[in-house]
This record gives sequence, structure tokens and C-alpha cells, in this order.
Amino acid sequence: MSILVVGSVGLDSVETPCGKVENALGGSAVYFSTAASFFFQPIRLVAVVGDDFAQEHVDFLRSRGVKLEGLEQIQGGKTFRWGGRYTGDLNAATTLFTDLNVYGEFDPKLPETHRETPYVFLANINPELQLGVLRQMTAPKLIVCDTMNLWINNSRDALMQTLGEVDILILNDGEARLLTGESNLIRAGKRILTYGPDRVVIKKGEHGAISLTDSTFFSAPAYPLEEVFDPTGAGDSFAGGFLGYLASVGDASEACIRKAVIYGTIIASFNVEDFSLNRQRRLTRSEIDRRYEHLQEAVLF
Amino acid sequence: MSILVVGSVGLDSVETPCGKVENALGGSAVYFSTAASFFFQPIRLVAVVGDDFAQEHVDFLRSRGVKLEGLEQIQGGKTFRWGGRYTGDLNAATTLFTDLNVYGEFDPKLPETHRETPYVFLANINPELQLGVLRQMTAPKLIVCDTMNLWINNSRDALMQTLGEVDILILNDGEARLLTGESNLIRAGKRILTYGPDRVVIKKGEHGAISLTDSTFFSAPAYPLEEVFDPTGAGDSFAGGFLGYLASVGDASEACIRKAVIYGTIIASFNVEDFSLNRQRRLTRSEIDRRYEHLQEAVLF
Repeated sequence: MSILVVGSVGLDSVETPCGKVENALGGSAVYFSTAASFFFQPIRLVAVVGDDFAQEHVDFLRSRGVKLEGLEQIQGGKTFRWGGRYTGDLNAATTLFTDLNVYGEFDPKLPETHRETPYVFLANINPELQLGVLRQMTAPKLIVCDTMNLWINNSRDALMQTLGEVDILILNDGEARLLTGESNLIRAGKRILTYGPDRVVIKKGEHGAISLTDSTFFSAPAYPLEEVFDPTGAGDSFAGGFLGYLASVGDASEACIRKAVIYGTIIASFNVEDFSLNRQRRLTRSEIDRRYEHLQEAVLF
Repeated sequence: MSILVVGSVGLDSVETPCGKVENALGGSAVYFSTAASFFFQPIRLVAVVGDDFAQEHVDFLRSRGVKLEGLEQIQGGKTFRWGGRYTGDLNAATTLFTDLNVYGEFDPKLPETHRETPYVFLANINPELQLGVLRQMTAPKLIVCDTMNLWINNSRDALMQTLGEVDILILNDGEARLLTGESNLIRAGKRILTYGPDRVVIKKGEHGAISLTDSTFFSAPAYPLEEVFDPTGAGDSFAGGFLGYLASVGDASEACIRKAVIYGTIIASFNVEDFSLNRQRRLTRSEIDRRYEHLQEAVLF
């Protein structure tokens, strides 16, 4: 049993009202793997980096039970770098630069040993690459997928093809509205279910998340934070907590999905409390459990 | 035992993408009273109308257990009229006209019999008038108050004085941000608690509501609606369901407050399904109970 994640590994330079950091470990596959590792290991990571990717990052990932056979290291190439700035209420980043570097040629090849992985997270990459990954899988049990405005606007056909093959789409409220043309989120969610996924999870930031199927509706609270230090990686941390929990119980029933949404919410709530993976590096299981209890109490009536 | 509400009674002309209505019964005190009447009667309404206010509206209010000794009718005067249009996602109304008429001279005088009312709702009127009402009360048990951008911007001193004397402030997210200068809603809520109220309830439309005290946090889901027909009166219907339920149980403990927030949410969710009071006119207790059960199920994890 394992989880496979295909996405980015990068070095982020981020400015927020709280401070700044340069060339810090980041990328969707890294946030996802770290978050998932609190619940389930091993995690098989498929991504690409350059020869400038520091050994300490490799060591960190290995320490979290992340298997790196699928991490291609391109000699003479440079790792993906992203620079962004958050201002005001930290809801949206302004991209300062995007140096795709080796990530620009990323064409995920799954090691033979990875093809039978049951739990799959297709992080926010070109939907044609997401499809290419699925073509290499032999027995996926649960496929969870992310996307973003870029692909919704520019690669809609491939995205719709991908959505026809995944079990769960996780996206944020703005993306759900853009994808469907529906401003009402309940209608947007129901529309997405007609595209293929059995379930859609719509993240709403400080307003929590909703999880919809044809016959179920779950409203998850946000964890009540008074400070957001750096929102980078929150979405991938959510997905990691979500799928990590599901893999740990080996059960994607409605009851388990709801707990998974809450664990995703909680890991994301910690992740935004510091730059990069810093908060997750020092996060303990008992801290996670306390927030879980706090949220249970917060919705009780 | 009774509930007192001081606010507006008016005739609304509303256009939405779903249709339009002219000179329909409306006003904060009317939405509040009708919503509260599902849980508790009698309700003592203090407001002003002109001699054009139709007998059928008086009869409707009486049929809901609303006592009208405090409804002043000005001979030769005209009733408050408001015209508005909602477009797109119906989040904000464009005001087409506001004819204050007799409401422009409103100076609430409480009949002697009303001064001992234990439950008080100060609807969204000038905070100087809200203070004037409080000066006339002899034994309020629970004072709930609403406000709006107009008073936050233009009557801040009086508003702060009112807030120093109320138990619960109910307002929406935009108003909470404007009132406090805090974009983070948890921080905004905590700031409001320093202004006087023991509790603040922040309504977030499709994202539900939160209720905060110094030591408690409640996250209430929105009722998942696929269509909003007309949002007019939703906030006052929320307050009516909220305070009506609290008066019915005679208990403002955290557990009862949470149920009250849910009942407020539910009455508001019905109110937006038709123009004016039309949905509330045909609403049954069993319909309310079904949505209550649905919301309990929706937050369970």
C-alpha cells in the first residue's frame, strides 16, 4: 500500500506582511507529501529537480517516509523557482517571477514499482500530464486531482478528459466558479459531478470547505486562525492531510471522507502559520488531535 | 414574557433576475417579527407607518402574534418605501430609491406596557434611536442589536455607545470588517467583544455564520441552497429566528445560542426563496425541523 503524488518540487521566495524567505523548499508534491506523512507512509513522489537541489531537502523528504525513486534529478539543470508576494488579507499572491527551469520539460515517468500504487494525487500540473500519469497506472483505487485557473482557461479539453477519469476533484471556490460558470457554489459543485468525479471538495479558505456527492453534503468549518503568516502550500497541505488520512484507514466511505476533510483543514491551518514547511517540520500528532477536538466542539449544536 | 422589536415597517419594490415585486410588505421589524413568530409569541413591534399602510398587512402581523400598540400610524403621512435591484450572484442590492416618508421622523416611543419586555431586538436604525429605546426599557434580559455601514461610517460615536449597552451584536462579515478595520473575521469578532457585547454573531451569507464570545467559538453552516430568489430581509429573518428561539426556551446558554443561530439560518434560508414574506407565509414547522435535521447531518464528522 502506498500513496503516489505527481507534482512540483521547487524553491519558493515569498514575501508577506510578516516577513520574507528566499529559496525555501516548496512545490505541490512537497507540501502534499509532508502533510500526508502525518497519517500514512510511504509516499511515492514523482517530480523533477535540477542538480542544485540540496541534499538537506532530500534528507528531509526521506525522513518523512517519502520514496524518491520517482524524483528525477537533471544534471546541469536548475530546480523550479517561484517568487510571490502576499499583501493585505493574504487571499491572493502576486507572482513576482516563475522560473520553470527543469519543470518546464516535466514529463512524469512512473518507475515500474510505482504503477500499482492504489492512492493517487494528481497535483496541479498540466492536465495532459495528469492523463499521462493515469495511463501508466495499473490499479488505482482512489484518484484525487487538483487543478487551477491556468488549465481551466487554457487546457479545458484535456482537463475535462482528466476529470472524466478521477474520483475526487479538490479545488477552491474561485476555481469551481470559473470551471462551471456557476456563481452559486452548491450548483457549481453539482455541475462538476456531471464532469466525472464522484465527489468534489470545494475549499473556501477562511470559510472552510464543502464536500459534495450526488447524495451527500458535508460542510466543514475552517479552523479559526487569528493570523495567517504565509498561505503558500495550504491547498496541497489540505490534499495531503485528506488523502493521507484516507490511505491510513483504507476506507473512502462518507464518514471517513468527512474526517479526511477535517484533517486536511487542520494540516493546512498549521501550514499557514510559518513560511515553507517550517510549521509542519515541528508539528506533532497531539497538536493535530487538539485541533480536531476543537473543530468537533466548534460545530456542535 | 415577550419580545420587543424596534425597526422599520415598509413597502419594498424589488427586482431580481427571478422577477420583480412592487410595494410588497417589508421592513426589518416585519421580517424579524414574522421569523420570530415561528418560535415565540407575542412580539411587540415598535415602528411607524403612514395612513396608506394596508389593513391586510396589519391583519397579517396580528395573525402572527404581533402586538401593534407600538405601531404608530401617522395620518396624512406615507409609509417608508424602498426600491432595490439585485443582479448577478445577488450578493448586494443596488438601491433604486429610498422614500423615508414618515420613517424619516421616527422617534420610537414605547407604550408603558412594553417597557418591561425582557427580549429586545434593536433592528438596523440610527444608533441614537437604539439608545433612546434602551433608555425607556426597565428590565431588559437580553438585548440584541443590528447595525449597518451607514451608521458605522456616519454615527460611530453613538454606535459605540449602543454597543456598550447590548448583549449580542449580529452583523454581516463586511460590516464586521468595516466596524473594526480587521480583515480577519476572528480578529474582527474578538475586537467587537471589546466594544461591549458579550457575544457577536457574524453572518457570512452562503458561508454560514460564526458566533464568538471570549471563551467560545461556534461555526454554523449555511443551508445549502441552489437558488436565491430574493435576499431582501434575510438578515432580519435570521435575527427573528435567533431571538424567537431564545425567548421560547428562556435560556441564552451557549448550547441554546447555537441552536438559535441554526434556527436563524434556517428561517433566513427559507425567506430568500421568494419575494417579501411570501415564503414565510406558507412555511410550516415541519419544514423548519427538516432543515434543522439536514444541517445537523451536514456538519457531522
